[in-house]
Amino acid sequence: MISTPVITSDRLKRLRELMSNPKYNVSAYVVPSEDAHQSEYVASCDERRAFISGFDGSAGCAVITMDKAAMFTDGRYFLQARKQMDENWTLMKRGMPGVPSWQEYLVDHLPEGTRVGVDPTVIAAPEGEHIKKALQAKGSGGDLVSIEENLVDKVWGSERPAQPKNEVFVQEMKYAGELHTDKIARVREEIKKEGVDGLVISALDEIAWLLNLRGSDIDYNPVFIAYVLVTKSDVTLYIDEAKLTKAVREHLGAITVKPYHEIFSSLAEHSTGLLQSKRKFFVGTTASWALVRALGADNVKIGLPPVTPLKAQKNAAEIEGMRQCHIRDGAAMANYFGWLENELLRGNGNLRLTEVDVADKLEGFRRAEEHCVGLSFSTISAVGSNGAIIHYSPQRGSDAKMDTSQMYLCDSGGQYLDGTTDVTRTYHFGEPTTWQRECFTRVLKGHIALDSAIFPSGTSGYALDPLARFPLWELGLDYRHSTGHGVGSFLNVHEGPQRIGMSKSTMDFGLRPNMTITNEPGYYEDGNFGIRIENTCVVIKVDTPYDYTGGSGFLKLDPVTMVPIQKKLVLPELFTDKERKWLNSYHQLVWEKVSPLLEKDGLGYEWLKRETAPM
Amino acid sequence: MISTPVITSDRLKRLRELMSNPKYNVSAYVVPSEDAHQSEYVASCDERRAFISGFDGSAGCAVITMDKAAMFTDGRYFLQARKQMDENWTLMKRGMPGVPSWQEYLVDHLPEGTRVGVDPTVIAAPEGEHIKKALQAKGSGGDLVSIEENLVDKVWGSERPAQPKNEVFVQEMKYAGELHTDKIARVREEIKKEGVDGLVISALDEIAWLLNLRGSDIDYNPVFIAYVLVTKSDVTLYIDEAKLTKAVREHLGAITVKPYHEIFSSLAEHSTGLLQSKRKFFVGTTASWALVRALGADNVKIGLPPVTPLKAQKNAAEIEGMRQCHIRDGAAMANYFGWLENELLRGNGNLRLTEVDVADKLEGFRRAEEHCVGLSFSTISAVGSNGAIIHYSPQRGSDAKMDTSQMYLCDSGGQYLDGTTDVTRTYHFGEPTTWQRECFTRVLKGHIALDSAIFPSGTSGYALDPLARFPLWELGLDYRHSTGHGVGSFLNVHEGPQRIGMSKSTMDFGLRPNMTITNEPGYYEDGNFGIRIENTCVVIKVDTPYDYTGGSGFLKLDPVTMVPIQKKLVLPELFTDKERKWLNSYHQLVWEKVSPLLEKDGLGYEWLKRETAPM
Repeated sequence: MISTPVITSDRLKRLRELMSNPKYNVSAYVVPSEDAHQSEYVASCDERRAFISGFDGSAGCAVITMDKAAMFTDGRYFLQARKQMDENWTLMKRGMPGVPSWQEYLVDHLPEGTRVGVDPTVIAAPEGEHIKKALQAKGSGGDLVSIEENLVDKVWGSERPAQPKNEVFVQEMKYAGELHTDKIARVREEIKKEGVDGLVISALDEIAWLLNLRGSDIDYNPVFIAYVLVTKSDVTLYIDEAKLTKAVREHLGAITVKPYHEIFSSLAEHSTGLLQSKRKFFVGTTASWALVRALGADNVKIGLPPVTPLKAQKNAAEIEGMRQCHIRDGAAMANYFGWLENELLRGNGNLRLTEVDVADKLEGFRRAEEHCVGLSFSTISAVGSNGAIIHYSPQRGSDAKMDTSQMYLCDSGGQYLDGTTDVTRTYHFGEPTTWQRECFTRVLKGHIALDSAIFPSGTSGYALDPLARFPLWELGLDYRHSTGHGVGSFLNVHEGPQRIGMSKSTMDFGLRPNMTITNEPGYYEDGNFGIRIENTCVVIKVDTPYDYTGGSGFLKLDPVTMVPIQKKLVLPELFTDKERKWLNSYHQLVWEKVSPLLEKDGLGYEWLKRETAPM
Repeated sequence: MISTPVITSDRLKRLRELMSNPKYNVSAYVVPSEDAHQSEYVASCDERRAFISGFDGSAGCAVITMDKAAMFTDGRYFLQARKQMDENWTLMKRGMPGVPSWQEYLVDHLPEGTRVGVDPTVIAAPEGEHIKKALQAKGSGGDLVSIEENLVDKVWGSERPAQPKNEVFVQEMKYAGELHTDKIARVREEIKKEGVDGLVISALDEIAWLLNLRGSDIDYNPVFIAYVLVTKSDVTLYIDEAKLTKAVREHLGAITVKPYHEIFSSLAEHSTGLLQSKRKFFVGTTASWALVRALGADNVKIGLPPVTPLKAQKNAAEIEGMRQCHIRDGAAMANYFGWLENELLRGNGNLRLTEVDVADKLEGFRRAEEHCVGLSFSTISAVGSNGAIIHYSPQRGSDAKMDTSQMYLCDSGGQYLDGTTDVTRTYHFGEPTTWQRECFTRVLKGHIALDSAIFPSGTSGYALDPLARFPLWELGLDYRHSTGHGVGSFLNVHEGPQRIGMSKSTMDFGLRPNMTITNEPGYYEDGNFGIRIENTCVVIKVDTPYDYTGGSGFLKLDPVTMVPIQKKLVLPELFTDKERKWLNSYHQLVWEKVSPLLEKDGLGYEWLKRETAPM
């Protein structure tokens, strides 16, 4: 975390000069967080909002007018944003009474007739269209103006990091499990069902999945920056061709390759034909306004991209890869915790090693595992009260010291050639309080209840979510995040559409066999401690004695994460016999799967042996 | 159940003559089940679909063309409809492959250009508008024609039962708990929030609730046929004035009374003013097409009527009434089961008494209780395989004999001046099989899980529903109905918007304090037996040690039904200690509340004593 504000006076002055340039002629300019693919993580060249404001949290939107610069962000980032931004910036605290969203600000708080500029590639199409209409409806010349040259990039100039040009590589068939040509054929079936003539794919993980290719353009996500257009007759990959090796070109076969930015002229060409035939192309809800404008709004059907559910239901090779990489990941975690416990209790690590020190050590253990290519997200390594900050990311310099008198929450994951991992464990290396044990036990009871549930195929994660909360609700406690998210197969650690959570959008997609989903209830006590117990799971079919569903059958979660859950934190009087059996049988499985990968009698081995012994 | 078909040739001939009369000039005519208030139960004068077809099940829609008569109904009624209808009628089995709904039939299966007639009072406005538009869009003169004279009534002629003219009576303040003038003031607040000038109330239970009046126009529902119009300045009750006693007129005070049918001319008068001022009136989603046509579709805002949620959250007097009447209802049930067991085991009732005989006896016990005015629905008294027919209603002549070798399912309820009851119990008076006990125990486990859950205020019944199903899902079993419905306060036994179920509409309304809701999981084995365990509950606030919600707090269900659950049907090895404690503590409460109302050492008393003894 940067602790001194970035001085932005000069940057803002130059941006405002551009805004008032007759070529652009806008008196407000919007700088969202997103890249052209609405990615959760972006490449450094796309961190425009951080550049213009200094604030580099994961969520925020800047609106710059001729006399004001406003940063809209949410409660997770109030402190960080205020620290990182200089006095040019007004912090707009989302969710606080009377504070508008940035969209409301544009429409209702700027002087009437304001022309607002935005780069149409970094705003989702429905949002761009909506704001444009709302401003126009206000009259007096108000408008949302699409400016194709990004004005922040022009200010950034030669200082702006280069577009990543990392080589793309082929995902081996033994991991992908299905030829990309077969995937394309399945996608074409979906296109037919949708009654459209083509599909524009802009989400980077969907492109990587479809083509069985991977890259490294964005930290933690093995994706590459590109677009794909699938029509009835052709598949075209729009990408910086320098990224393509000979092997990749051979792999691509009949797929046409065109320069990245040509997607827009290609779509513009198609628009004429679509208009005449009254046919449409399908684009996802996260497609940029620029893509939809290139096609013409009337030629577009917007919705959940048909690739999303296909990608979500993994094939046998992907499932096997997930299981295998999680066993190796479990070995890395055992080595880490064995080392850490030894450092804290028998070495001189206590009150000396910091959160980042130990996270780096964990990264080392992970990278030592076969097929590991890196982390799947920035490790959350949080001591004591830092554990209560749900999106905490320790920064060297401001990170806390490891402390055996405090709880320790560690949420981490790796990218492996055969899969992606995501695991959270909460440990106490000293003497936990009864209250900490009670909270931990209730979180674990929720985790076990969700893990044990058998439910009809297609059940929404909305209906399953409360299972993980009931033991906390009994005391009036809860946690302010959803209970589970999808996990990619050597892809993004967060993927949809499957989800276990209490937001209404969760309703739209039920759980299906071979989806991946995390099970991660938690409890967070501000200023004190945080608890989360997270396993990544595969949704498996269960052979029930009867089948009321008439064929679609019943499902349950099957955890693939192989890391012990600390028994010392369990209050036995709150634990049922069934729950004790669940924990013992899970631990036995962890021991059987992971111990063969550990150095006999090493720290990790001894730690795993003790931690997985029956309770 | 009528077992010989009604001969409809003459009725249909006369209806077709009317249809071809130039005054009406339609070649198809729709006869839905509903009355002008979209009531679940209707008065006999409104049973038009039963009159024209012979089929008197609760759900079905008839479409008569010049050469065909089609009855659309669902799987519950295939057998009954076929038995009750003569050869003039084609049965259209809803949900079977290739069978259209009646709406699809009108739009897609009739010859192009067909003019379809309907009485606009018996079809909901959104449905009427939708079908009209769809037929018109087909071109060739196709249309849905609103015919204000009901053509079936013209055929029915003097044989048609008279409109009910039963006296309306005042609900005493000690039961209503809130002056109707105060209720009207609260409704006006809601009207203001909706930004409309008035509210048309057509649902009969909402009218009864609002005015603190009750009636007896419809079996089982203490309502009276009327409309209410609330504007900013006036409240008008449209009703057959003969129903109003002097006491009711005094109670109504400043409320204007007009003849029932004048609602249409009143609305037509208002429509001019609304059109000029561009203001609207609010009507509920169940309002008839006739009401909306009278107002003009542009002058109408359709949605969940603001009265519905106000009625759903009961006041202290209503809650107390619900508790008290359920205690008396429990005494009636104890007397009934005490008598029934004695007849079957020690008398000569076994294989002699029928389902209807014993249901009549139960009605007698209920009517003997203080404040009882009748039943809240037709008693489901079902032996053996009849219990597996979810909407079974025994009919004298075709009803089964009581049989101690079979399960017995009894779903019944009463209307009391202080509340409405609804309870289902499943008993076996002989030796249940282990499988029956296992199924019963799993249903009971689900019931207890839902009863025990503590959840944040506003939690949707969608998220709670699976709790009641998990024990069945474990084996691949389930039940095909929702888990809970609202219950009126001396009103309809089914009321919304609260609900516990897996349909998406359940999402729209969360549970709030002082709502009533049933908890009624079941299990049904075709041709064999049915199990259902139903308690009516009040949603109560729970004082949790903490309150994560920041004020809205936590809730749970509190059962007000006071009837033992048969211990003999519980398999102890499937029951946890917590569940055993739940059952014992529930039974202790039942004993404490109900035993003082029973004749000491009588059959009911002895039965209750044994059935509520700890397990």
